[in-house]
This record gives sequence, C-alpha cells and structure tokens, in this order.
Amino acid sequence: MKKYISLEEAQSLLLEYCQPIGGEYVELPEAFGRIIRADIKAEEDIPPFTRSPLDGYAFIAEDTVNADRQNPVSLRVLEEVPAGYTASQKVVSGTTIKVMTGAPIPEGANAVEKYENIEVVGNKIKIFSSFKAQENTIAAGEDVKKGQVVVKIGTKITPPITGLLASLGINNVPVYKQPRAALVSTGDELIDADIAAPLKPGKIRNSTRVTLQGYLKDIGVEPVVIGTAKDKAEEVAFLIQQGLSKADMVITTGGVSVGDYDVVAEALNSIGAEIIFWKIDIKPGMPTMVAVKDGKIILGLSGNPASGLVVFQLLGIPFIRKMAGQSKYSLPKIEAVLQQEFRKPSPKRRFLRGKLVLENGVVNVKLTGSQGNAILSSMVGCNVLVEIPAGSEPLGIGKKVIAYLVDKID
Amino acid sequence: MKKYISLEEAQSLLLEYCQPIGGEYVELPEAFGRIIRADIKAEEDIPPFTRSPLDGYAFIAEDTVNADRQNPVSLRVLEEVPAGYTASQKVVSGTTIKVMTGAPIPEGANAVEKYENIEVVGNKIKIFSSFKAQENTIAAGEDVKKGQVVVKIGTKITPPITGLLASLGINNVPVYKQPRAALVSTGDELIDADIAAPLKPGKIRNSTRVTLQGYLKDIGVEPVVIGTAKDKAEEVAFLIQQGLSKADMVITTGGVSVGDYDVVAEALNSIGAEIIFWKIDIKPGMPTMVAVKDGKIILGLSGNPASGLVVFQLLGIPFIRKMAGQSKYSLPKIEAVLQQEFRKPSPKRRFLRGKLVLENGVVNVKLTGSQGNAILSSMVGCNVLVEIPAGSEPLGIGKKVIAYLVDKID
Repeated sequence: MKKYISLEEAQSLLLEYCQPIGGEYVELPEAFGRIIRADIKAEEDIPPFTRSPLDGYAFIAEDTVNADRQNPVSLRVLEEVPAGYTASQKVVSGTTIKVMTGAPIPEGANAVEKYENIEVVGNKIKIFSSFKAQENTIAAGEDVKKGQVVVKIGTKITPPITGLLASLGINNVPVYKQPRAALVSTGDELIDADIAAPLKPGKIRNSTRVTLQGYLKDIGVEPVVIGTAKDKAEEVAFLIQQGLSKADMVITTGGVSVGDYDVVAEALNSIGAEIIFWKIDIKPGMPTMVAVKDGKIILGLSGNPASGLVVFQLLGIPFIRKMAGQSKYSLPKIEAVLQQEFRKPSPKRRFLRGKLVLENGVVNVKLTGSQGNAILSSMVGCNVLVEIPAGSEPLGIGKKVIAYLVDKID
Repeated sequence: MKKYISLEEAQSLLLEYCQPIGGEYVELPEAFGRIIRADIKAEEDIPPFTRSPLDGYAFIAEDTVNADRQNPVSLRVLEEVPAGYTASQKVVSGTTIKVMTGAPIPEGANAVEKYENIEVVGNKIKIFSSFKAQENTIAAGEDVKKGQVVVKIGTKITPPITGLLASLGINNVPVYKQPRAALVSTGDELIDADIAAPLKPGKIRNSTRVTLQGYLKDIGVEPVVIGTAKDKAEEVAFLIQQGLSKADMVITTGGVSVGDYDVVAEALNSIGAEIIFWKIDIKPGMPTMVAVKDGKIILGLSGNPASGLVVFQLLGIPFIRKMAGQSKYSLPKIEAVLQQEFRKPSPKRRFLRGKLVLENGVVNVKLTGSQGNAILSSMVGCNVLVEIPAGSEPLGIGKKVIAYLVDKID
C-alpha cells in the first residue's frame, strides 16, 4: 500500500486497473448518450444522390450561357419530380424537369433555378440568368462520403451522431455496456434521506449518496445503492462484498480517516482486497482509500461531503469514463482568470470549487462559495476545480489559474 | 400571419404562447435533471449541530491559552463520542471528551485538537498548543442556514442540489411536469431509419427525427414520435392533430418552403390552426412556420437537416425551456474569437455551426465543418451558433463574434 501520494500518481494507479467493459447493441434513439464501440464507416454517400436544395427546375447549365433579364432562355418542361421519386425521362438541351426540394437531379441536368425566379408560359419556362454547372444542386456525398469514418470508437453518441447513423441505416448501434457502480455509505450518524422523521441528536441525513447517484447517472453509470453500514468493519465488509457482486466497482463514503472508527481499511483487509493507496496530498479529499478485489476497484471516499465529492470528480470521473469506453477520459485543464480573492495561504495543494464564466472573450472563474471540507452548497454550480499549488500565498483578482473541468458548462 | 420576420421577433412571438405546464412530486434521486417548482427554504441548519471535522478531543479553548510544546496542558478524558451519538456529560475546565469525525461538539467544549497531535497518558491527554474558540469545529448552519433559500423556483436540479434537498429531509420534490413534444415528419422521400432495406432511388432515411428525439431528451422533453406523412395536406393534418392530442407541442419537419408540395400551411389551415408567422430572415432556417391551435404551438421546421435543427435550437430551445418552467430560458450569448476563416460574404444574417474552444484564457470558436443547409455532419460537436450580421464581408481569423450557446461545453 502506498501512502500520501500525489493526485497524478493516484489517477494513474487507478487507471491501470480499468477493466474493459463488455458490449451490446442498442437501437437508435436509445443509443443517444452511450459510448460507441467501433469505428463506424459510411457504406454509402449522404445524401445518396445529387438532389435539389429547393423547389425549381433542373436543366443543363450550358443552355443558359447567354441568358439574362432581356434575353431569357426558353425550356420545354418534360415532367415534374416530387421529392422521393425519380424522373422517367432524361434532360436534353432545350428541356427541363420540375423538381421539388430534395428530389434527385434528373439525368442530364446539372443546375436548378428556383421556382420564384422563372416564368411559366404554357408547357415552357423562361430562365433569366446564366448558370454554372452544379449551381443549386447538392452533390451526392456532400454531407458524408462513402468510406468516411463518421464516428470513432470511444465517442459519446450525441443527437446529431444518431442522425448520421440513421442516415446510413445503422439502426442497431454497437455500444459499450453502461458500467454499474455500487454505493456503500458508512457511519452511525447517517440517516437515509427518505426517512421523514425529524433527526435525532447527533444524526445527519445522507446527502452524499444521493449526490453521487446523480453524478453517476450524469456520466452514464448506473448507480446501485447497496445501503448504509454502521461503523463496524464486518458490516462494511458485508456491504462492500454485496457491491462487488452486483456492480463493476464500489464507491464507499466515510470511514477512511485515521480514527478508531475508521473501519473501511479493516473491512477491506478482512475480505482480502488489496489496498492500493491511502491518502492523497490534496485538500479537500486527503483521506481517500483505493483498493482492488477480483479486478474491481473500491473507491473509498471521505465522509465529508465536499472532500468525498471532489475526489469523486478528480479520481472517479476519469476512471469511470475510461471503464465506460470513452476515448477522452481525462479532465480537461483550462486556463482561467480568477475573478475573486482567495485570502487563505495554501500550504497544501488545494482544489477550489468554481464556475467558469465566459465574459468579453475571456475565460474567467468565480468561486462558488465556502470551501470547507464539509460544505455541499458550493458544489452547486461548480463545473471546475481550481488548482492552487502547494505553498501559494493568498490569491488576488486577476490571478491566472488552471481549472479542471469536472462538469459541463451551460 | 407575419412573414419574413427577424429571429428576435420570432422568438418573442413564440414565447408569448408559452403555456404553463403542471406540476408533480418526484422522489429524490429521480428529481435530478428536473425543474423545481417552488423556492425551497431550509427548515433547519445544515449541519444541524456543531460538530467535529476530525477525529480528536473536544475541550474549552481557554484551557489551552498558555500551552506549547514545552508546556502542554493536561486534560482528563470524560468519555468518547462516536459520530451519530451525543455526549452524556458536559465538558468543564480541565476535562475533554474524545470525538470522532462528524460527532457533535459536547456541551461546554468549543475547540478540537486532532488525534495525531495529542499524547495519551492514562485517562488524560496532553495538548501542545493553544487554541482559539471554535478552532477545528464545524458550526451548525455552516453549509446552509435555517431560513435560507437553497433552490430557487425554475432551477434545473443538479446532483448537489439533490444532496442539499436530502440533507433537509425533502424527499418529495415539487417539480414541473416534463413537457412532451410530438414529432411529425413530412416528405414522400423519407424512409424510417429502422427499415433495414436498401434505399430505393430518390429516397433518403429520416435523420432529423432521430436527431430531434435526442435533442429533446437532452433538454428534458419527452419526444412522442407520431410518424411520417406523405406530401399530402390531409395526411399532414391528421398527424398534426394526433400530435396535438398527445403532446404539449408539435414539431413538424419539411413542407414549409414555397413549392407545390409544401403542404404544412394547407394542413394547418384545414385544422383551424392560426399561422403566427412564416419565414425568418436568417440562413440557414429561413423556411420556418409557426402556428398555434388550442394554445399549443406547432413549430414547422425545414426538412433540410441543418436548417431545421438550427431553428430548433434558436427558436425551439428557449421556448421549450420556458414551457418546462426554467427561469433561465434564453440562449446565452458569448463573445468569442474566430479561429478559422469564413470566406463567403454574408448578404443575409447567418448562423454558423461552431464549437467553443477555451485556450490560454481566451474564448475561441472553431467552425465544425461545411455550413450547407443540408449538412448534418457539422452539427456534430456544435455547441454554439456563430452570428454573422447581414452584409458581412468574408471573416478572417481573429475576428470577434457573438456565439449563441446551444449545447453544453464539455
């Protein structure tokens, strides 16, 4: 067991234990939000044929070479092609075919004039300007060319990606299974949030479990709530084992500091889990314990809400993203300008809860409130953790900082 | 019916028709992602009592006023309090009570020294430094004070908000119902994406419907797929009416330009819907038609993927957010620096698909690809629409632009 290691060492130790998760196929609308498990190559062009972007008339551009307002060219209308159908005839010099938006450009034609600009005279039309080949046409493959990779393995499927897959007729999408994470809370003081009764003295409601459920869902992980153990090693061990049997990883909260009642280490030892490290050299979140059993990670977080949740974001999110198959799993680091003083010196390396604010073309960052280990309210609105290097003096407004993006900006 | 109006006029006309959506209660973990329907005031402090942030000993700070390494103060241990319990005795001068992380500070005590720094001698401990009142204690209400509003009406519930609600014992959360949006596709050329057969000539697969399903889910709206109508007014009318009966709004795609087969207007007239406006002065997305029937909006989008989806974002997202009860419903406008040339002059007001890139403290924006009306692939990765004012010359690298945030930055 390593002790009191750097965040980077903790992250890379953890990532080494990433087990590949299996795959499955899901149908298209449900594939949204999932991670794709293969490079998807276009087997056909999108669009599949050259078509008209507007309601108009298709003809041969060369027929219009001398046309203008005073000298319109007159073309005979052969037929009309709605979107979804094809012309039965070929356009030859002096003729035209009426095409609706989305209709294929008939054979022979290579330009389209819009409806509003022509004049109909019996079964003929007049065109009042000259055209270049391909003018007002959408070429086959303009959007995606046959053979092109449209989605790379490890990409999170967004709505327009589902649209591209639909265009290609790929309705059954190969994705990674969604990992499951078991949640084990520890602490005699914890009362489940759904117990309506008033709190007895010394008790608090379990806020971290509910918060973690949301964070997990948000990154595509199914949370499996195992329950809350009293501060007894055998209870904790029992619940961790339940978690290991039901999920791909276990997240515990509480019981990882140095006191007599910090029973997670004892529980892990009793079930034969290997403790990989204990304590990280950061604030908040120093008391963190990571173990492995049968290839599955047990992430032991502090029971203090902010300590536990900040470490979940710094360590847990990259690990889970990688386990879920995402090719981009690290937290993006963003340079930002502090918009607020932080008056405390930081003998230890700190992470402050903040929110990126994009103003006047500049990436600013504000702190989201009080920074104590137990403060949950400043996680609200927090989308970055601002890194304060060890040994920093108080920070003034305008200081350039590095912010780790832990949540979306919206 | 207004015709060819500005985006701003279209937005505000649409917003006027926002119907308030009803409310419901959902249990806590499921409340994540929903919009809260009332200000939530804390009925108690979080934490509910002053507690110890660490494993240590609680005592009266004044007892340690002269203590240092050479002159430790000796205190008699009365008892031990784990988290979740309360002391049976009161701390008086010369005494201390052992407290675990999260345990309430016993009556009389006002400071805590951590476990690692004391020396145990029989039933006494030695403390080697002097303390100030409240040192190493977490005050009741440090996180949230009784009476404070913890969540404002119209806020989207994030994981830490669920945690705060859990802390306060609010397990049944008042939220707005999720609006439903019915999807009606029109066009003889459209084939459902889940039909595996190869495409017949002139046909294309319906990519927009699937994309809209994802976009809607992403903003908390339940998509209700009604189906695809041929280019016949009576079919379109029938499906729109089905949509109106099953959902809070209807979104149609296709059939809103100027051609003979653009049947949405005819369908709307036939069912007695009032057309509010037709055509917006922007590119892409000019052919857009908005109507109202029985207080429900019908948003008629272009059948060209990008035209339709861009207007969905510019018009649909603010409208839907407001309908869903979100207090922040407008698209944020962000100043950004263009990182790429856009060589075309823009006689009309344009919106280009782009992606914000935060680099070196600067908000940059890149274009996501080809900008044609029919191009779906450049919606991938697009989180902003870059506004190009009417009459703009080609734009160079470094040009400051306004970008409308239409999707999350991650």
